[in-house]
Amino acid sequence: MKAALLYEYNKPLVYEDVPIPEIQSDEILVQVKACGMCRSDVQLVDGYFLKYADIPRPITPGHEITGVVSRIGGTVPTSSFKEGDHVVVAPGWGDGTCRHCQVGNTQICANVRWPGFGPYGGFAEYLPVPARYLIKVGKNLKFEELAPLTDAGLTTYRGIKKLRHSEALAPDRVIGVFGIGGLGAYAVQYAKLLGSGATVVAFARNSDKLAVAKAYGADHTINIKGKAAEDISKELAQLTGQKYLDAIIDCAGAPEIVQLATGLLGISGHYVDVGLVGDRIDIPLFPRVSREQTIQGSFWGNNNDLSEVMALAAAGKIEHTIKTFEFNQINEQLDLLRTGDIIGRAVLKF
Amino acid sequence: MKAALLYEYNKPLVYEDVPIPEIQSDEILVQVKACGMCRSDVQLVDGYFLKYADIPRPITPGHEITGVVSRIGGTVPTSSFKEGDHVVVAPGWGDGTCRHCQVGNTQICANVRWPGFGPYGGFAEYLPVPARYLIKVGKNLKFEELAPLTDAGLTTYRGIKKLRHSEALAPDRVIGVFGIGGLGAYAVQYAKLLGSGATVVAFARNSDKLAVAKAYGADHTINIKGKAAEDISKELAQLTGQKYLDAIIDCAGAPEIVQLATGLLGISGHYVDVGLVGDRIDIPLFPRVSREQTIQGSFWGNNNDLSEVMALAAAGKIEHTIKTFEFNQINEQLDLLRTGDIIGRAVLKF
Amino acid sequence: MKAALLYEYNKPLVYEDVPIPEIQSDEILVQVKACGMCRSDVQLVDGYFLKYADIPRPITPGHEITGVVSRIGGTVPTSSFKEGDHVVVAPGWGDGTCRHCQVGNTQICANVRWPGFGPYGGFAEYLPVPARYLIKVGKNLKFEELAPLTDAGLTTYRGIKKLRHSEALAPDRVIGVFGIGGLGAYAVQYAKLLGSGATVVAFARNSDKLAVAKAYGADHTINIKGKAAEDISKELAQLTGQKYLDAIIDCAGAPEIVQLATGLLGISGHYVDVGLVGDRIDIPLFPRVSREQTIQGSFWGNNNDLSEVMALAAAGKIEHTIKTFEFNQINEQLDLLRTGDIIGRAVLKF
Amino acid sequence: MKAALLYEYNKPLVYEDVPIPEIQSDEILVQVKACGMCRSDVQLVDGYFLKYADIPRPITPGHEITGVVSRIGGTVPTSSFKEGDHVVVAPGWGDGTCRHCQVGNTQICANVRWPGFGPYGGFAEYLPVPARYLIKVGKNLKFEELAPLTDAGLTTYRGIKKLRHSEALAPDRVIGVFGIGGLGAYAVQYAKLLGSGATVVAFARNSDKLAVAKAYGADHTINIKGKAAEDISKELAQLTGQKYLDAIIDCAGAPEIVQLATGLLGISGHYVDVGLVGDRIDIPLFPRVSREQTIQGSFWGNNNDLSEVMALAAAGKIEHTIKTFEFNQINEQLDLLRTGDIIGRAVLKF
Repeated sequence: MKAALLYEYNKPLVYEDVPIPEIQSDEILVQVKACGMCRSDVQLVDGYFLKYADIPRPITPGHEITGVVSRIGGTVPTSSFKEGDHVVVAPGWGDGTCRHCQVGNTQICANVRWPGFGPYGGFAEYLPVPARYLIKVGKNLKFEELAPLTDAGLTTYRGIKKLRHSEALAPDRVIGVFGIGGLGAYAVQYAKLLGSGATVVAFARNSDKLAVAKAYGADHTINIKGKAAEDISKELAQLTGQKYLDAIIDCAGAPEIVQLATGLLGISGHYVDVGLVGDRIDIPLFPRVSREQTIQGSFWGNNNDLSEVMALAAAGKIEHTIKTFEFNQINEQLDLLRTGDIIGRAVLKF
Repeated sequence: MKAALLYEYNKPLVYEDVPIPEIQSDEILVQVKACGMCRSDVQLVDGYFLKYADIPRPITPGHEITGVVSRIGGTVPTSSFKEGDHVVVAPGWGDGTCRHCQVGNTQICANVRWPGFGPYGGFAEYLPVPARYLIKVGKNLKFEELAPLTDAGLTTYRGIKKLRHSEALAPDRVIGVFGIGGLGAYAVQYAKLLGSGATVVAFARNSDKLAVAKAYGADHTINIKGKAAEDISKELAQLTGQKYLDAIIDCAGAPEIVQLATGLLGISGHYVDVGLVGDRIDIPLFPRVSREQTIQGSFWGNNNDLSEVMALAAAGKIEHTIKTFEFNQINEQLDLLRTGDIIGRAVLKF
Repeated sequence: MKAALLYEYNKPLVYEDVPIPEIQSDEILVQVKACGMCRSDVQLVDGYFLKYADIPRPITPGHEITGVVSRIGGTVPTSSFKEGDHVVVAPGWGDGTCRHCQVGNTQICANVRWPGFGPYGGFAEYLPVPARYLIKVGKNLKFEELAPLTDAGLTTYRGIKKLRHSEALAPDRVIGVFGIGGLGAYAVQYAKLLGSGATVVAFARNSDKLAVAKAYGADHTINIKGKAAEDISKELAQLTGQKYLDAIIDCAGAPEIVQLATGLLGISGHYVDVGLVGDRIDIPLFPRVSREQTIQGSFWGNNNDLSEVMALAAAGKIEHTIKTFEFNQINEQLDLLRTGDIIGRAVLKF
Repeated sequence: MKAALLYEYNKPLVYEDVPIPEIQSDEILVQVKACGMCRSDVQLVDGYFLKYADIPRPITPGHEITGVVSRIGGTVPTSSFKEGDHVVVAPGWGDGTCRHCQVGNTQICANVRWPGFGPYGGFAEYLPVPARYLIKVGKNLKFEELAPLTDAGLTTYRGIKKLRHSEALAPDRVIGVFGIGGLGAYAVQYAKLLGSGATVVAFARNSDKLAVAKAYGADHTINIKGKAAEDISKELAQLTGQKYLDAIIDCAGAPEIVQLATGLLGISGHYVDVGLVGDRIDIPLFPRVSREQTIQGSFWGNNNDLSEVMALAAAGKIEHTIKTFEFNQINEQLDLLRTGDIIGRAVLKF
């Protein structure tokens, strides 16, 4: 089968022909039909994660995976899947025994494994997946739209759920979405769907991306390029009647966005980060305390989160800005994503 | 001023001319512009509440009150209100010192006072209101639409908020709204607005009322008239793919509806009652335990709830089925409401 | 091996010699060292559950199981268990795929299986258990004390956790524990351990049982035998300064206790039932609504709950009132439990 | 009356004789009996808050206030207070109308006023207090012990409540208390009282302070002076069996402690800061996200929090390390506190 392999950091992936993987008895062989390309694929290639984990190489990147059931392991209950079923791959395969796995948060298990961050990934034609991490989906749904829902459209869903759970979203509240790339385009939609009528304001530096946010339901957009925090706050007040945000989802995570966003956060405000463009929080402490703010990291999503996203997808409630590309364009697309020149999500389609 | 007074239970109200009330220094005299008529007005007249409280008579009923600031007490901060402001009256005036008042839930204060359940109410041209229980609203909003939002449209909002807070609402869940009268018509809308994509099913015996529910966004309606619980469950399964409900708001509260609704409640399901047609919960215990269900009462709403409802109203997100009537029709309308022959809400307009 | 089998309802169990069970590849054969006897064992024999499920017979009752790892299935990770390990059996074996299993609540899975409610149970010398439902424990802990912690001491723990999660427990609150049998004796202790300083009041009809509650930390006890609700409320006020309870765990669940307990429940109060002596909730609706009360069922516990209970046990924080009995005394003990003549918990010890 | 006034930053307070203040009709004149000295008094003198608010001078510092009702304003309900009542002063007097005040969190009101950060404070013999911010206490309680419970013993209580509310405390969890000064000595006690059996570990640089923590119930203490984070993690593992903390309350808030503490925070961990020694959070972003951690500021406490603390105090459940000093020693004590040379809390006693 075709596979794009990472042998050396900061080098292009190598396109190879490799054997179709074997499966364990509790696994299913998935024939990949589409795989989204994520900023973390670029970061993986660029060595961002090296300080946290040195994964044995070669790595097959690609973790936004959807496809078709190709072969079924011997101990998988026969009632659950059959060959030809369309499936999405839930990320974050835990050890199943730790406290976090016990409540379903396998993606934060200390012993977690990830497709796309090890020998198998979605930038290949097949991969083995433990049956319990597959969710069956309707055959009417498009593979290229399903793929990004397993990370870009899942991570933001979980992030917004955390805001909702914190009671930060209500009809008289304002939520800010920072960064309108692959993730933010979904975050805006979830902010409307789960926001209980909260006003949604999108923040980005690129007016084309803000136009996407507007099209997906953002009540207002603010182009922050070259503007001082104080001026952005004033612009916010003109648009919404309040100069602070009650809730924030940060789909960027760049140090200056963390500073800008938390600086705009109001009393009792909640800030959730899902973006990993940078790796630093460097902000004053006192306003967090005196305003009783909360800063949370939200990581990917679990099986139930993905089921909920699939329910929205099945109901036709999620819109996509997708461009598809082919296997031999992977490296080229990684370069485009690195420079930020992609509106929406690029998806590998086999 | 004109006032409709309850002198004797189970008798028509007496239309009288009485003096305009005095106000305390922390109160505001409100000129009533509209007052919704609520099922609990009928119950008040019919003596439903007598076993819980014997209110000194005459009582001026009417608690869904909106109007105009007419006179302002001496210690009310001058910055807060001025004559002519349009206001809605938040119900449930607490003592301000108990544990419940301290967190804003003045409506469940043990020493609570209610407009419409004492000497002053909305079935009169003026009433005194403590300034802190008034919320200013835009002059573009219609009084007859604001009135029912202070009870019918507030009580249901709080009930749905409790369901949301319980994490019972999500894209792959089904919520049932039981009883589509004055309250249910709002509950259906909030179920959509706050439901995070949950499927909304309306249950009632009257097809005209179900048509209102459908018009307000219910995904499905089930006419329960004369049907066995088991058949209703099957109908639910055909419509939604599951024979149980994950969340319920009961806007009726009749004993047989409590039984029907809780019987349809699924594993880990949440049932919130806001309806008071009956006064009995008589259901099996074991399914509540083995399915880990939650049964909650939700009562009216607090200031913050009402502010949130007003934010939705200001954004034009709430629809109304209102018919207005005049002062001298109060008794006639009480009779109509008693027999259930009202679609939506009847509102007294001065 | 020895096994006590239920062939006919309302008849004594039959003591038999049967083959040691086989295990599946993901199971472990547990040699039972102790098994608590629960009121639900009596109810099983008496046919209480027949209307909810007709379990194929013969049934081996006994679900409070602890013992020693005897044989290990082929696909159980070798790192997790070894022969001779001391283990407790987590109850409620789910299908692992439903929404409830995904968050660990396998005990409310629609397809749940239970030890003691099918062919295998703790009133036998051996039983097969899926490896994921075993928790390893220290060899210094006594089997006869571990056994009841898997139901009596687990169910009450989860119930009190629900009260804590509801924010119903705080230093200025009063929690009532109703029913001081096998469950209540643990509930009192958890009310102290998890109560954040709340005052704990035990209610029962038997002064010997109340003495146990007192010994386990109850701040006050009230003997309710033959007393009117109003007098009990006065007694409560004398002891605690308030005539209502803020939180209740009902370890009885008898209809008259449900009525008494909810009648004593204050504004914003939370009532959790874990007791199944009766099968009826028959109470007024209005006070639930006007006081915004919550009624919840809590069922057994999940793996994480049991791990937490084991942490308390390992720290020596749980006291027990245990009497042990032998295999051939099972029927005799069932009779004693049926009449309520047992203080604390009777435990079968092999 | 005597008053110690701040005329110039970074200078000693000036001891003066000034008129006893007038009161408004809704206020009560409190004769100060004791006033705790807080690190934030030092910070006030040192100009720490200048960048956030330039308070008109002279300022009367002192915000941990308890005393006796001396005179009562005309509109204060006569049933609530009488002359001679012992009271504590709840801090954070809000405008009463904003969203935060509505739910009782007056201390985070945008228009908040503070005793001790304006013309009136506890370093004077009398001050006027709005009646609603006074809580009556038993005359058996010692003033010098009540005083610090209105900030040191309130702020930490609220912080621990946030951890409890986050479900971060359980029998199998480990909570770290960082900084064992005036606040930490209370935090350790609350960690035990509200911790549901969690293991409590105190971290500080001073072995005398750690001895206080141990005496107040800390299960373990770790002296972090001169140790690398990695070694501290190992020491933690030796003591508790796990090298990460599940919950943290940071009573210091110094930049290096924020770094150390969050670095020790485990998966799904909650970190609450109440300390304001520094004013910088400067930490990596990725671990917050990949471990789904939460960072929260907690500020002082509200009326209900203080009532709960008073309930604990009345029950004799709080221990104190107090040294009292006299009015003319205020400046000297500020100097001692600035250098950190105080074990427990210094309290001004009139």
